[in-house]
Amino acid sequence: MQAAIIAVGSEMLTPSRVDTNSLYLTEKLNDLGVEVVQKLVIGDHRPRLSAAIRFCLEQAEILIVIGGLGPTEDDLTREAVADATGRALVFDKQLVAAMEARFAALGRKMAEINKRQAYVLEGAEVLPNARGTAPGQWVVLANRQVVVLVPGPPAEMKPLADGEVFPRLAKMLPPLALATLTYRIAGMGESDVDARLAPIYKQYENPVTTILAKAGDITIHLRAQCAEKAEAERLIEEVGAKIRAEMGNFIYSFDGAPIEEVILRRLVAREQTLTVAESLTAGMVGARFGSVPGASRAFVGGMVTYNNGQKQALLGVDPWTLAEHSEVSEAVAIQMAEGAKARTSAHWALSLTGYAGPDGGTEANPVGTVFVGLAGPDRPARAKRFRFPAGDRERVRLFALHAALNFLRLELEA
Amino acid sequence: MQAAIIAVGSEMLTPSRVDTNSLYLTEKLNDLGVEVVQKLVIGDHRPRLSAAIRFCLEQAEILIVIGGLGPTEDDLTREAVADATGRALVFDKQLVAAMEARFAALGRKMAEINKRQAYVLEGAEVLPNARGTAPGQWVVLANRQVVVLVPGPPAEMKPLADGEVFPRLAKMLPPLALATLTYRIAGMGESDVDARLAPIYKQYENPVTTILAKAGDITIHLRAQCAEKAEAERLIEEVGAKIRAEMGNFIYSFDGAPIEEVILRRLVAREQTLTVAESLTAGMVGARFGSVPGASRAFVGGMVTYNNGQKQALLGVDPWTLAEHSEVSEAVAIQMAEGAKARTSAHWALSLTGYAGPDGGTEANPVGTVFVGLAGPDRPARAKRFRFPAGDRERVRLFALHAALNFLRLELEA
Repeated sequence: MQAAIIAVGSEMLTPSRVDTNSLYLTEKLNDLGVEVVQKLVIGDHRPRLSAAIRFCLEQAEILIVIGGLGPTEDDLTREAVADATGRALVFDKQLVAAMEARFAALGRKMAEINKRQAYVLEGAEVLPNARGTAPGQWVVLANRQVVVLVPGPPAEMKPLADGEVFPRLAKMLPPLALATLTYRIAGMGESDVDARLAPIYKQYENPVTTILAKAGDITIHLRAQCAEKAEAERLIEEVGAKIRAEMGNFIYSFDGAPIEEVILRRLVAREQTLTVAESLTAGMVGARFGSVPGASRAFVGGMVTYNNGQKQALLGVDPWTLAEHSEVSEAVAIQMAEGAKARTSAHWALSLTGYAGPDGGTEANPVGTVFVGLAGPDRPARAKRFRFPAGDRERVRLFALHAALNFLRLELEA
Repeated sequence: MQAAIIAVGSEMLTPSRVDTNSLYLTEKLNDLGVEVVQKLVIGDHRPRLSAAIRFCLEQAEILIVIGGLGPTEDDLTREAVADATGRALVFDKQLVAAMEARFAALGRKMAEINKRQAYVLEGAEVLPNARGTAPGQWVVLANRQVVVLVPGPPAEMKPLADGEVFPRLAKMLPPLALATLTYRIAGMGESDVDARLAPIYKQYENPVTTILAKAGDITIHLRAQCAEKAEAERLIEEVGAKIRAEMGNFIYSFDGAPIEEVILRRLVAREQTLTVAESLTAGMVGARFGSVPGASRAFVGGMVTYNNGQKQALLGVDPWTLAEHSEVSEAVAIQMAEGAKARTSAHWALSLTGYAGPDGGTEANPVGTVFVGLAGPDRPARAKRFRFPAGDRERVRLFALHAALNFLRLELEA
């Protein structure tokens, strides 16, 4: 079964807005075995919207139209669907009563203009909107095509789609069992991951494989759909086993958890604690650990030492080492980790120093060079040198963050 | 003049991908006075793509098709445009020679499959692609409609669009002068900003106003387009003056610079330095300062104290204060700021402590409560209490970050 999605609203055609509602709908449609074959963004323009609806109904069996259901003159979805399908709009008095009651409950009187939202396509089922006044609509055309109208605000759209739309679609469709798998990988570039995995996943149309990469952090997602659940799970395990054999311990997560959470879980299991000492990332590593609920069970905090004075004052880095090796060096990364560990009494300390750019760097250590230091409970501190592509300061910092987290993760697995 | 944009590629119809190329093109088209009236995402499917091209040519004078120009069988844009416009595809031997030379320069032999990229629509101008092998194409149809083909990878698309597409469009279009203005606002909610500004900007069709909000940080963008540059600038200044009068010092930036950069500029001008002491944000504030190139001229670093032990060890917070007031309190925020200032010798210290959730919080200070402390060069440290909506840990942390930055910004302006 094939679906098309239209997002309605002139504001969605500005340079600063993307339609993300369709991503949510696509994921849920895929789970039901429905393929999304086209997506459109159309402004608040009745003839253009009618034409787009007609065009989509030539291409797909299911059409979901998002937005344009509000009370103002700009909200033209109801009218455009009526134009495109030849269905009349019928005024639903019960809907008006329900809307008035909703306003009354908030101690307000409903403005007259809201009555526009009570027009329903002839033969449509009204889909109640628990979070707003604009209800959805479900229309089955004479040729069994389905047109669904849902409100645009994500906080209204999602619960309405989950509660009213997908259950109706599921009833229409042959039952399909789904099995998924998410692995996450660090320490290997995107093109290398793809070169190693393509020979595996290209053998299979089912499961479908997607690979997402973000500055050194790569997520592999498999989705198998079969008539029988057991068969979908068998397929996922078959491909999953091949991926595990190929990637080994480059895989850090078998359940989709991000690397900072994987690290914290391991530390909690070991009853050990962690601190960080950051220079170029200036707090990004700490902030990432702090994003995990309950992080304080293992993460104690750390220091941001953005200049040499603070590296000495807060971490006790030796001024002679700074002078001899410069602040971006293996020796300083090691002393930063040792200093942070000593001053916080944590079991582990991770440190980062490097050149993010645009300025800075030396001939030996140009912009993009990062040293990550690690001090642990039972062997001498050490450091590793990384070299990332220069040119984008934020990207260098993000690569450094992911490389540092992976350095610690591998040490904890060893 | 009106334009439509089609992004081609089945991978763009997955739940994890959005088309961002069209945002770049939209901004540049708007600058030329061209309105984007619809955007489509179509998979690698020749009949569907041809149908989409025909549909767009019914709705707009300019059509830009992004992607599907590579060498593989999935790359069907050339063929689909040929189908939809009735133009033949012509094999361009010169293009093949240029492609072969490109491969040779990299010391490689061109694979036969790349020759697919040398098919050009009859009458099209070939648009050279400096960053890849797939050239763009510029076709003017009999009725003066323009169809432009550009490659999908942003690193190829943007320079090709800037160098080849927009100059050609500019020649076709009446000259239009552009003036823009970007103000940024902190310390006021999005709906309050809109309620105060809508009566101003709704009076004007030109300039066009857009408002973007992100957890306490709001950007207002005005764009005026006129035949004369002076008139566009006069309009911008007219509306800008009204916005300044209405918003006063809620505006922190008159040139689009983010608040961390505004703060660092002021500190550099005063020859003063800054440190931070973070709890719930765990490094986000430091990381934000570190994102500004040259931040080290004013930002010295700071401490992340994620538990009470570190608040004592790294910042010298009094254990009795922690016991009496708890770690989320005005008294602790003040001592955190004082401790950070003393230990780093910075002129200013900003501190944050609060409950991000999901767990934690007290009856008096539930999840979402944040205290921001500030110690400065010439008056006693003080703290301010904020209360943000609970429920989304990352959003509470982001609100806390922006509130803290704004607290410091206002103090530096006073």
